[in-house]
Amino acid sequence: MIVAESIKEIRAFVAGAREAGREPVGVVPTMGALHEGHYSLIDAARRQCQAVVVSLFVNPTQFGPSEDFRSYPRPIEADLAGCEAHGVDAVFHPPVEVMYPGGAATTVHVSRPAERLCGASRPGHFDGVCTVVAKLFHIVGAEAAYFGQKDYQQTVVVRRMVADLDMPVRIVVCPTVREPDGLAMSSRNAYLSGPERSQAVALVESLRLAGRLVEQGCRQASDVVAAMREHLRRRVPAGRIDYVEIVDPETLEGVETIDAPAVAAVAVRFGSARLIDNMRVDAPARSG
Amino acid sequence: MIVAESIKEIRAFVAGAREAGREPVGVVPTMGALHEGHYSLIDAARRQCQAVVVSLFVNPTQFGPSEDFRSYPRPIEADLAGCEAHGVDAVFHPPVEVMYPGGAATTVHVSRPAERLCGASRPGHFDGVCTVVAKLFHIVGAEAAYFGQKDYQQTVVVRRMVADLDMPVRIVVCPTVREPDGLAMSSRNAYLSGPERSQAVALVESLRLAGRLVEQGCRQASDVVAAMREHLRRRVPAGRIDYVEIVDPETLEGVETIDAPAVAAVAVRFGSARLIDNMRVDAPARSG
Repeated sequence: MIVAESIKEIRAFVAGAREAGREPVGVVPTMGALHEGHYSLIDAARRQCQAVVVSLFVNPTQFGPSEDFRSYPRPIEADLAGCEAHGVDAVFHPPVEVMYPGGAATTVHVSRPAERLCGASRPGHFDGVCTVVAKLFHIVGAEAAYFGQKDYQQTVVVRRMVADLDMPVRIVVCPTVREPDGLAMSSRNAYLSGPERSQAVALVESLRLAGRLVEQGCRQASDVVAAMREHLRRRVPAGRIDYVEIVDPETLEGVETIDAPAVAAVAVRFGSARLIDNMRVDAPARSG
Repeated sequence: MIVAESIKEIRAFVAGAREAGREPVGVVPTMGALHEGHYSLIDAARRQCQAVVVSLFVNPTQFGPSEDFRSYPRPIEADLAGCEAHGVDAVFHPPVEVMYPGGAATTVHVSRPAERLCGASRPGHFDGVCTVVAKLFHIVGAEAAYFGQKDYQQTVVVRRMVADLDMPVRIVVCPTVREPDGLAMSSRNAYLSGPERSQAVALVESLRLAGRLVEQGCRQASDVVAAMREHLRRRVPAGRIDYVEIVDPETLEGVETIDAPAVAAVAVRFGSARLIDNMRVDAPARSG
């Protein structure tokens, strides 16, 4: 496994892999602090691609001024060991000044689907995500890129960008990996205190509740959201609800009546940690 | 020469060219209505590349609501004949709905250098340019792209985008091609009436005047601009000056003292036509 800190090095690796016939190339963009969720993406890339590049880069431009950029975990030795163990061929781990040298003035902006949910709570977040992902795609030049369903809105926004800009890369979305109690794996779970960690399971509980209600015939999104909010309020006294929504899977617009596949999405703050989760909620097909 | 209207066709052409070892691939992005300026770009691409793609696409998103999108000339038969005569291998001529299918929500935005000069007169223009150029780069996947010096700000903004987003393409800028009397060639010259056409030469005259003044030792940009404005006012009664500026060649910020290479840039409106031109003005190196 090689570790590249410069754009030139990672491009040389990819060019070499291509010359050796190792195609397609897959890329797994991450901010490091890798957990089983990330490793499931790497494993999927390993199965589908002949060369796998993982980027480890805590991207400053997707953090708001009062967010956790400085404190975001950076366990680089453990991440590199994990990549090695999972058969990664090359790690791209650039310093900030390699990705953002002075004078940069370009932003990739996705409007509608990026403005709702997390985009409403974190202004500029998805501009930062899209811009750094576009850069990574141009730097690595992979045929496929792997993202986790946990960051559902991110997958929608990145797919939108790729489609709109005709980027020659296939976006692969892999299922959310969960702790035994159901909590979605996230690098930010490390921020939780003991009591917060116990309460955090309420996010997935509220999503499963939504799924059950819809399955049982509840079609009013407002009723489902009310039940989810009630569950969260009861189970998460330490947390502050950021949003609870039932949205269209592509546009991320809120839906009123659940008569087509929809996505339930929640975000809850615990102190400085902000946890998100989501789940598909489908009305069963009507018979007769 | 093939003419592709779909993304799939032009990608297949480029893939075939690469498989046949015809690399590098060059692309010349145009809005059609080709003139000797465009053909000089094509000829440069022909000399430097093994396969040359020309795009002919009048991009709606770079026109303002009151601009000339509908009336912009589209002499497609003449353009295709010209491309054929200049040894173009493939023309990409997509309908608008191929480039902008419903639901598109992504914009590539360059801030500072795009906000001055033409960007100030044409809000959103460079967002449209950058977005369509990014799309073309992703669709064609060329190693080199050719632009004319005449659209100087466009070359600066596109270079900025390519550098900031790490796009794997080399931007080649070719000198402005001029009519015998000095008028910069432009598809929009066709809009000029007889008297306007005679007056339009005042743009390049004002730029040459700037060059002479700087050569003669004039260092105050405001003095040079005043002389240029005076010349234009006298010679172009039918026109309205949009801007006359002396700017830094990279940031496009206005300069006060011309003690380093700078660019003189003018824009003048003649009825519905808006003509632009520019020229490098360099203070001679001091001796002793």
